[in-house]
Amino acid sequence: MIILGIDPGIAIVGYSIIECNGNNFKAIDYGCITTDSDILFPDRIKIIYNKLTEIIEKYRPEDLAVEELFFNKNVKTAIKVGQARGVEILAAVNKGMNIYEYTPLQIKQAVVGYGRADKSQVQEMVRILLNLKEKPKPDDVADALAVAICHGSSIKFKESFRMK
Amino acid sequence: MIILGIDPGIAIVGYSIIECNGNNFKAIDYGCITTDSDILFPDRIKIIYNKLTEIIEKYRPEDLAVEELFFNKNVKTAIKVGQARGVEILAAVNKGMNIYEYTPLQIKQAVVGYGRADKSQVQEMVRILLNLKEKPKPDDVADALAVAICHGSSIKFKESFRMK
Repeated sequence: MIILGIDPGIAIVGYSIIECNGNNFKAIDYGCITTDSDILFPDRIKIIYNKLTEIIEKYRPEDLAVEELFFNKNVKTAIKVGQARGVEILAAVNKGMNIYEYTPLQIKQAVVGYGRADKSQVQEMVRILLNLKEKPKPDDVADALAVAICHGSSIKFKESFRMK
Repeated sequence: MIILGIDPGIAIVGYSIIECNGNNFKAIDYGCITTDSDILFPDRIKIIYNKLTEIIEKYRPEDLAVEELFFNKNVKTAIKVGQARGVEILAAVNKGMNIYEYTPLQIKQAVVGYGRADKSQVQEMVRILLNLKEKPKPDDVADALAVAICHGSSIKFKESFRMK
């Protein structure tokens, strides 16, 4: 099964395409979509939507696994990133994909086996599970790989993580 | 010039199509797109995107005028409505439209001439300016008409309100 993982954002969107076969994971592609803050916001979300659509058409993943957003204070940032996340999810649903979302705690639990693991531990486990030579960088890419692995490990509980 | 006005939302999206000729405004169409909370969120944003795309293809408006989102406390709601607003803006930008955003204060100022006007005053002025028999309802539709009128009155200052 092919999974698309997304770490949502507006300036940097991390994405990953992994193949999952039982407990075996293989990274097929991963990287970042970046948009410059000089570009008008509507054009930035259009760029993100088009690039994600291209990636989906190329690899034809079945499921999207996306990290939940958490913001404690900055409502303005929450709205901005929320707007981008809506478009990222739309790109997948417009291609008939099913959408699943996971909290950072669930992702760490699934990847490291410990919900309070730090970023570096998550990155090291992602490296080991995908048999990569180096830790994936930047953080946004590592997070996109981690959420896809998390979904791959959770497939038996699929309905519980379906985005409501 | 044809303007699309949107009052962003997820359960109810108010929309309006108005024709603006100098200081004359004519309501061509207005209403609500509603999505039930029983439907999965990704499907709700897909419904909204598709319906807005249909409306844009039917009336071919040049500009989208959309209200800015304000949330003081509830970050969860801000993210949810933000996600929907991103998709609403994408529908317009994917059809080559220019996007303008206005705060509630700017809208009231433009429609009533007084930034602290209440909802009922805004609705009454919308009714008068568009020569409607009754106040448009629900609030979401009145707000979508008001933001379109606001944009129509502000066209000479266009660049100031372009969505950044």
